[in-house]
Amino acid sequence: MTGFLEEHSAQVGEAATRIRAYVRRTPCLATDLDPGLRLKPECFQVTGSFKVRGAFNAILTLAAQNPRPAGVIAVSSGNHAQAVALAAATVGLPALVLIPEDANPAKVAATRALGAEVIQEGITFANREERLHEEMATRGFTLVHPFDDWNVIHGQGTAARELLEDVPDLEVIATPVGGGGLLSGTAISAKRHNPALRVVGVEPEVADDAYRTWKAGRIQSLASAPSTIADGVRTTSVGARTFETMFANRLVDEIVTVSEDEIASAVRVAWSRLHLALEPTGALPLAAYLTGKLPKGRVGLILTGGNANLETVATLLRR
Amino acid sequence: MTGFLEEHSAQVGEAATRIRAYVRRTPCLATDLDPGLRLKPECFQVTGSFKVRGAFNAILTLAAQNPRPAGVIAVSSGNHAQAVALAAATVGLPALVLIPEDANPAKVAATRALGAEVIQEGITFANREERLHEEMATRGFTLVHPFDDWNVIHGQGTAARELLEDVPDLEVIATPVGGGGLLSGTAISAKRHNPALRVVGVEPEVADDAYRTWKAGRIQSLASAPSTIADGVRTTSVGARTFETMFANRLVDEIVTVSEDEIASAVRVAWSRLHLALEPTGALPLAAYLTGKLPKGRVGLILTGGNANLETVATLLRR
Repeated sequence: MTGFLEEHSAQVGEAATRIRAYVRRTPCLATDLDPGLRLKPECFQVTGSFKVRGAFNAILTLAAQNPRPAGVIAVSSGNHAQAVALAAATVGLPALVLIPEDANPAKVAATRALGAEVIQEGITFANREERLHEEMATRGFTLVHPFDDWNVIHGQGTAARELLEDVPDLEVIATPVGGGGLLSGTAISAKRHNPALRVVGVEPEVADDAYRTWKAGRIQSLASAPSTIADGVRTTSVGARTFETMFANRLVDEIVTVSEDEIASAVRVAWSRLHLALEPTGALPLAAYLTGKLPKGRVGLILTGGNANLETVATLLRR
Repeated sequence: MTGFLEEHSAQVGEAATRIRAYVRRTPCLATDLDPGLRLKPECFQVTGSFKVRGAFNAILTLAAQNPRPAGVIAVSSGNHAQAVALAAATVGLPALVLIPEDANPAKVAATRALGAEVIQEGITFANREERLHEEMATRGFTLVHPFDDWNVIHGQGTAARELLEDVPDLEVIATPVGGGGLLSGTAISAKRHNPALRVVGVEPEVADDAYRTWKAGRIQSLASAPSTIADGVRTTSVGARTFETMFANRLVDEIVTVSEDEIASAVRVAWSRLHLALEPTGALPLAAYLTGKLPKGRVGLILTGGNANLETVATLLRR
């Protein structure tokens, strides 16, 4: 485990250097809620979510290979799509993104605006892996996996690394967990910084595969993509690399779940009291904090993004 | 003018030292809109608005006097009320706040929660000055004026001072203008930093008294409090001290006005693209920027607060 942690935290450090010119160092915010609480608002990141950290680390690494790949391909319901589109355009590689038909239209439009080719027709959560392999075979493009890729994991780990540079004495750090890329990178940075720091993943109750995986000690999957307002964490299971990092190596201490109502309340608190316009997925750690589900102490929350559907949020604000 | 600027900018520096332990240094944010744009999001300030800067500077100064005043009194439609309530509670002085009956209820509740006595019954924009003088006479409390007070002006100037420490090469700086406290403090900090820096105030078209005052070279007043969604700038005229600073000493280069629709659009852009949950008043400089009404160059916008009525904002987001 020590070897694993040292090796991977060194790679997070290399990722931080590699992506520095392309992503923002987001601020660390204090709040009026609690003097011990600190926020890492990745809604202010380039493209509005943390996903550019991993995408730039992976695509800058690919672009430095000889020969360069013919292009990159991704499947995503949104934020990873925009991140891959921007990173590929930055290094001059073609990008193809498969986005399920029911995805947030604003995220689809943003992905096209960043220069990627988008295929939505006939793409569902169920068939998207199959369609992905068809397109990879046809075009010879290289996959940028949204979470189960070491370069992506190392890039995502730079957010917690920055937060811990700003607040070295944090005792708890919480992030959303879908496929586990961000949580794995966070755990690497946090446990290398301080092995006693508690690392917690937060997911919707209706998408509790990471919780059940943590409890079971082996990967548990959802039968189908869950229906949750936290549309960034609809993945049906964690990956081999994220499982290895989070659970086999025990770098994550705990997974907690929150209800849809708790997520909605957290969005309202974010918008009305923290003045952060978060997307519901980005409010998952806040939901766990507000409902007392996180360990006590000096807590840092990584709030992952702000690309909300305004209609959805307007409805939440009126409740 | 040189003497005026040196003296007052030195007092802004003293204010920065005086209030440091009580207010936050808000971050400077970059955006995906324009690489030359920088934001100072005072929605992340203590109580959700910049007003604590001036209130703490004034009330810490009062509390250091011998004898201390019996208490402090303020009239405000909202953010100044919360700021005075918090600063008074912090130094242990009683606070009485007169708030017009039609003010945002969330701001009234927040003021009471911070320990101030609030009188709303029978208070209107028209009669509040008279009621203020009655209460001052009865109780012997000291007024903390929302803008026409040098200590308040110097406190508000600390926001631009921080922004210019973070981005020394700004070419334009814009703030909302109501009574002119923030704009005066900003102009003092900005012109001392660089006399060529353009300082712009932004107000609603329907509340264009500062614009007309700038054009006329003497104080122009509105006949009654204007009806605008930017409820933080409903004052009917600038004050003697703010007029002296902004216009007599020509520290403000320009006043621009924006329509109600332009303010509403800016709120939507703030929430959807900048991920900042601003109140409409806080979005005034953004409205001027988005409509091309600000000078070109490296622009800094002071976004003053986030204490929005959620119902109002939900309506705006749906348009």
